[in-house]
Amino acid sequence: MPKPPLPRHLVELLGAANPAVLATVRPDGQPVTVATWYLIEDDGRILVNMDKGRRRLDYLRQDPRVSLTVLSHESWGTHVTVQGRIDELVPDRDLADIDRVAMHYTGKPYPVRHRGRVSGWIDIGFWHAWGIGGGNRG
Amino acid sequence: MPKPPLPRHLVELLGAANPAVLATVRPDGQPVTVATWYLIEDDGRILVNMDKGRRRLDYLRQDPRVSLTVLSHESWGTHVTVQGRIDELVPDRDLADIDRVAMHYTGKPYPVRHRGRVSGWIDIGFWHAWGIGGGNRG
Repeated sequence: MPKPPLPRHLVELLGAANPAVLATVRPDGQPVTVATWYLIEDDGRILVNMDKGRRRLDYLRQDPRVSLTVLSHESWGTHVTVQGRIDELVPDRDLADIDRVAMHYTGKPYPVRHRGRVSGWIDIGFWHAWGIGGGNRG
Repeated sequence: MPKPPLPRHLVELLGAANPAVLATVRPDGQPVTVATWYLIEDDGRILVNMDKGRRRLDYLRQDPRVSLTVLSHESWGTHVTVQGRIDELVPDRDLADIDRVAMHYTGKPYPVRHRGRVSGWIDIGFWHAWGIGGGNRG
């Protein structure tokens, strides 16, 4: 799989408000997936943000490796997967990060204000894309 | 997380031609995700089908545990995740399985006829749903 930097058309794909699925690994080795919002940052890392009560935070503290598949909302035959790690988990003070993410997806701040949240940034190790310049989904 | 059987509205969600992402785990513990077609069978297992050259077949032979997140194509805030295992990987003779899957998604047989494929069936151990009767995506 290719390493970063990502080609511009993939940065554009990741820059749109697309559906995505994040995988982490439980300490017993079971993969766990969940649909997620995300936001690609100017430095090329990908922000994901979780309620502070999520068990996946415990999984990430034990093993920071993740895989994120982003589907194009225009055509989900077009998708990109990034593999990497979340080395840093940071309390989302004032919900500033989730508000940035929610604005990106919904145009509004995040509606749930009474729960703490945690931000993590995926350092992309490898990426692979389908549906842009060939490939298939099988 | 609840165990099967799934409630009927989730069987209906899984029965539609929805986008999905499958996670496997590499022998070194790295989670790997990929967008996939799938088909829920009458016995409640979920068929996934891969090109016979996919490395994920090797991963599955080493560790059959998977997680599949299915997004509703109508509203991807609605999604269901199933965790389970693929205990059986079977050559897709005559491409009969991928043709069933392709018919479900595209209304046509699978176009690539010169490559062998392999079928696997996910035995669902647990499931979790969002966007149907509450929950959020964070």
